[in-house]
Amino acid sequence: MLNNEINEFLKIEVPIIQAPMAGGVTTSKLVAEVSSAGGLGMIGAGYMTPSQTRDQIREVTQLTSNLFGINLFVPNEFSVTKNEITSAVELLQPIYEQLNIQQIDSQDIPNSSNVIDTFNEQIRIVIEEKVPVCTFTFGIPSKEIMDELKRHHIILIGTATTVREAVEIEKSGMDIVVVQGSEAGGHRGNFIDGFRESLVGLMSLIPQVVDNVKIPVIAAGGIMDGRGLLASMCLGAKAVQMGTAFLTCIESGAHEVHKEAILQAKEDQIVLTRAYSGKWARGIQTKFIQEMQQHEEIVPEFPVQNTLTQPIRKAAVAQNNQDYMSLWSGQSPSLAKRQTVRELMESIITDARSMMKDF
Amino acid sequence: MLNNEINEFLKIEVPIIQAPMAGGVTTSKLVAEVSSAGGLGMIGAGYMTPSQTRDQIREVTQLTSNLFGINLFVPNEFSVTKNEITSAVELLQPIYEQLNIQQIDSQDIPNSSNVIDTFNEQIRIVIEEKVPVCTFTFGIPSKEIMDELKRHHIILIGTATTVREAVEIEKSGMDIVVVQGSEAGGHRGNFIDGFRESLVGLMSLIPQVVDNVKIPVIAAGGIMDGRGLLASMCLGAKAVQMGTAFLTCIESGAHEVHKEAILQAKEDQIVLTRAYSGKWARGIQTKFIQEMQQHEEIVPEFPVQNTLTQPIRKAAVAQNNQDYMSLWSGQSPSLAKRQTVRELMESIITDARSMMKDF
Repeated sequence: MLNNEINEFLKIEVPIIQAPMAGGVTTSKLVAEVSSAGGLGMIGAGYMTPSQTRDQIREVTQLTSNLFGINLFVPNEFSVTKNEITSAVELLQPIYEQLNIQQIDSQDIPNSSNVIDTFNEQIRIVIEEKVPVCTFTFGIPSKEIMDELKRHHIILIGTATTVREAVEIEKSGMDIVVVQGSEAGGHRGNFIDGFRESLVGLMSLIPQVVDNVKIPVIAAGGIMDGRGLLASMCLGAKAVQMGTAFLTCIESGAHEVHKEAILQAKEDQIVLTRAYSGKWARGIQTKFIQEMQQHEEIVPEFPVQNTLTQPIRKAAVAQNNQDYMSLWSGQSPSLAKRQTVRELMESIITDARSMMKDF
Repeated sequence: MLNNEINEFLKIEVPIIQAPMAGGVTTSKLVAEVSSAGGLGMIGAGYMTPSQTRDQIREVTQLTSNLFGINLFVPNEFSVTKNEITSAVELLQPIYEQLNIQQIDSQDIPNSSNVIDTFNEQIRIVIEEKVPVCTFTFGIPSKEIMDELKRHHIILIGTATTVREAVEIEKSGMDIVVVQGSEAGGHRGNFIDGFRESLVGLMSLIPQVVDNVKIPVIAAGGIMDGRGLLASMCLGAKAVQMGTAFLTCIESGAHEVHKEAILQAKEDQIVLTRAYSGKWARGIQTKFIQEMQQHEEIVPEFPVQNTLTQPIRKAAVAQNNQDYMSLWSGQSPSLAKRQTVRELMESIITDARSMMKDF
């Protein structure tokens, strides 16, 4: 069971994919180490500039001869008025002041066309650099882009939060679908269904998706160990994608304060918020989330709010101030460990094998 | 694996417990048939009067010689002012009129002491009628009640939605803990953690609870078939408790419209609401839920709102009007089937056994 068609297709030895966490977590060392250990390492390029994207692809290629992948954020149309930005900035003003942050430059606030340009650039780089696997969050790229990537034999993977989204991903020609359960840390990937309808637990989501698509299903959300791997496979998944479990690894680029916060957290401290980025995401409760709670529904759309809070998060990191960092985590923080990628992956496979013997 | 210590303890052949759905779903025939088929049938007595409770216990005892159980709602303190009731009634007035419902009699509105009296009566009946297994939702009974039930060798099972709640249940002396994942249909059982913090998916909840308690764990929420049973056991559960899967069975007392609505529903139509009862619960989106959405946070506490909407739900049932029924369902409606209890249970075990062979 641990060796199925997906291993062959992705040329991996163990059905473990490292989730493409954006924002500096997926260092080249982390990505390469996962691939070298027999899994699939993934570059989280969602927030990268084109040149950062190219640099990291080249760096990972140097570090491993195994397949690896990259994840891109599919741009969603957004429009935010000047007034909305002014109100949003006013709301954040006391925090800017507290953390000694200069006024945001309105030049820095993205518009739809910047974001689309960056995405198209990234697609070109993925093709030029011959990245073997490309995964997408927040939607499905245009038919032209899909066709172009397919012509270059790049393996394409979409992210779904509901059966309806998985079916659309299959229809678009993707090779594989990642299903993101409500347990998952970081941003919700819903792009057709609304946020609330998209919060389906993996126990329900995996079998219902498996029954409705023919492409292989990868499970994501709260999976941390051999138990989660085997359970996902019992439900019909062919592999798992794990974020939080890799985030606390030695090789991850997450801030030490973030790692430590996860290692100390309990599952009932993990909440959903759209205060950081304008998109709903799951992480550890912070002072910032509490302070923003009553305004949560009115902050500007992603990625505008993300840009507005970026200096706050940067200052928090520089000052080791946990209160204002974004501490993304799935719902299983108490299963996280501080260990190397190899220790994590070996223990998962050893545990899964020993459980299978007892069946 | 399908035959573990919990089977011996509960004297069951298969590790399947039928969830104690309140409100007429758990007919004596359903309960007895589950127990006769080797599982544990459960009377959902949450809304029953003492005499109804006694009658059904006796009826089930007549129908099966196997063990069965009963579930009681642990009373929570509540206080609602006259003004709150007046506003709540005003909000419902257009629906009362539309469905030709008489004004609610203020005598019918429960107070904390009525509810506690009924619960204490039910406990006395459980002891007198020698019900072998008693499970609790919404909290932990007083030490006096726990001691009394233990003196009568009744097996005691608590319901938890978080690790913290499971640990408290273990400390209270319960023999087993049911963990209710966010996937579960019907009322949320949280009693220490808040509603939002209590929405933990089973992929995260089961292993984290198993790592923190010594008593056996039963998994509940979205489990419908052999895949869900095996997955739950991989995660560390010793048995599963299934609601929706039994609700659509021939023997269940759920309204035909309710059964049919589940059989037609998709997972992204299943939502959370407190509009029906004052407690958050999961079910199929209805016109009533939509109409009440903006007032959801202000309706009176359970069980007051439940009493106020009772005539609406009754009239809806009498008129076959799906719009105003409470259509509780877990997040896996598309896995539900119209079948007998025996067909359901046999297919689960057959599927699980055949999957285990392939491991």
